[in-house]
Amino acid sequence: MLLSSAELDQMERRYRASFINSLGGFKSANLIGTADSDGHTNLAIMSSAVHLGAHPPLLLLIIRPDEAQRHTLSNILETGVYTINHVHEKFIDAAHQTAARYPKHVSEFAATGLTPFWQPGFEAPFVAEASIRMGLTLREHQRLAINGTHMVIGQITLVTVPEDCVSRDGSIDIARAGTVALSGLDSYHRPQPLRRMAYAKPDREPTPLDPSVMTRA
Amino acid sequence: MLLSSAELDQMERRYRASFINSLGGFKSANLIGTADSDGHTNLAIMSSAVHLGAHPPLLLLIIRPDEAQRHTLSNILETGVYTINHVHEKFIDAAHQTAARYPKHVSEFAATGLTPFWQPGFEAPFVAEASIRMGLTLREHQRLAINGTHMVIGQITLVTVPEDCVSRDGSIDIARAGTVALSGLDSYHRPQPLRRMAYAKPDREPTPLDPSVMTRA
Repeated sequence: MLLSSAELDQMERRYRASFINSLGGFKSANLIGTADSDGHTNLAIMSSAVHLGAHPPLLLLIIRPDEAQRHTLSNILETGVYTINHVHEKFIDAAHQTAARYPKHVSEFAATGLTPFWQPGFEAPFVAEASIRMGLTLREHQRLAINGTHMVIGQITLVTVPEDCVSRDGSIDIARAGTVALSGLDSYHRPQPLRRMAYAKPDREPTPLDPSVMTRA
Repeated sequence: MLLSSAELDQMERRYRASFINSLGGFKSANLIGTADSDGHTNLAIMSSAVHLGAHPPLLLLIIRPDEAQRHTLSNILETGVYTINHVHEKFIDAAHQTAARYPKHVSEFAATGLTPFWQPGFEAPFVAEASIRMGLTLREHQRLAINGTHMVIGQITLVTVPEDCVSRDGSIDIARAGTVALSGLDSYHRPQPLRRMAYAKPDREPTPLDPSVMTRA
């Protein structure tokens, strides 16, 4: 079926939100951990992390101006740090529940049963249950005039990954680490590896990657 | 294993690119279709599409300043339009191959065997083989000073989706549509649906979505 701009515009509000949110493709599922300057913690699920660069290592996040995500933003601006923790298949329910509009004084850690984990010297809480977690330092914040969302760029300064998921070439087997993918607003998926492809060159046919590269480090 | 900023900085360049690219989580796999003002087509795989808003329907793309992606950017700026086409499991090889650095006069459509499909009145080519495809109009372009990447925001003005993949609530079953997910630079995955979760509320336990919502429209 082919839909025009006018047809998208005429969709019922929640129907359109589900439809448009599905269109970009599969998304990352991450828990963003923050604290205010008094140490009150906050945890919010977000599917908007996107790779911005490897050197320096930068991730971009889009934060919506609604209640649940606003606490995260104000904490990041207050302390300059935050954590990004991959949602693991074993705690999808708790991760999804962090999207509920809890009052500011309620920590989503306490409300959902996830465990805050503090790295010495780092002012934002990690998720103890996560197998892949990162600490980030705020590098840039911009409110996007087009729709009032916030773009937050952070530099990765701490990384925890399971050693047996890192391949010889540096890539991380995040499926093996239990990381899930999101579609739309609420649909959790377990990605099954199909194949890795070798670096594409104009004078070579598409080639699956040499399996020796995929052995663990 | 726990890695510090200094350890990330000391990694060998390609090892670090693979490592950092894996950290954000699963990514969308899309082919971006463009043409210059003479109608010469270009096609480039990108994993950086992120949902920015539903009303108006906006997607953000990060475009790297390297050769393969620069042609896409210059075409978007020239014509103001582009297409985003989900990578389907059946054409992963061709999609990955569009990342090769072909000279400007070589179209990745011709080089990879994918078929350009023109929608009347729309100046950028769609991928005929894709089951989910969108036409977008450029709304904002910004070069990010932090690392020279380009942020491109577009409004979705045309959408083609398989009718049997749209649920009653508007969500699209993109796994059923054959859409794949990417991890890192080159690792293609087939996501298996685990479960959909109901809208999270502070006074309710995490609840799987009522299956009746998931029936087709």
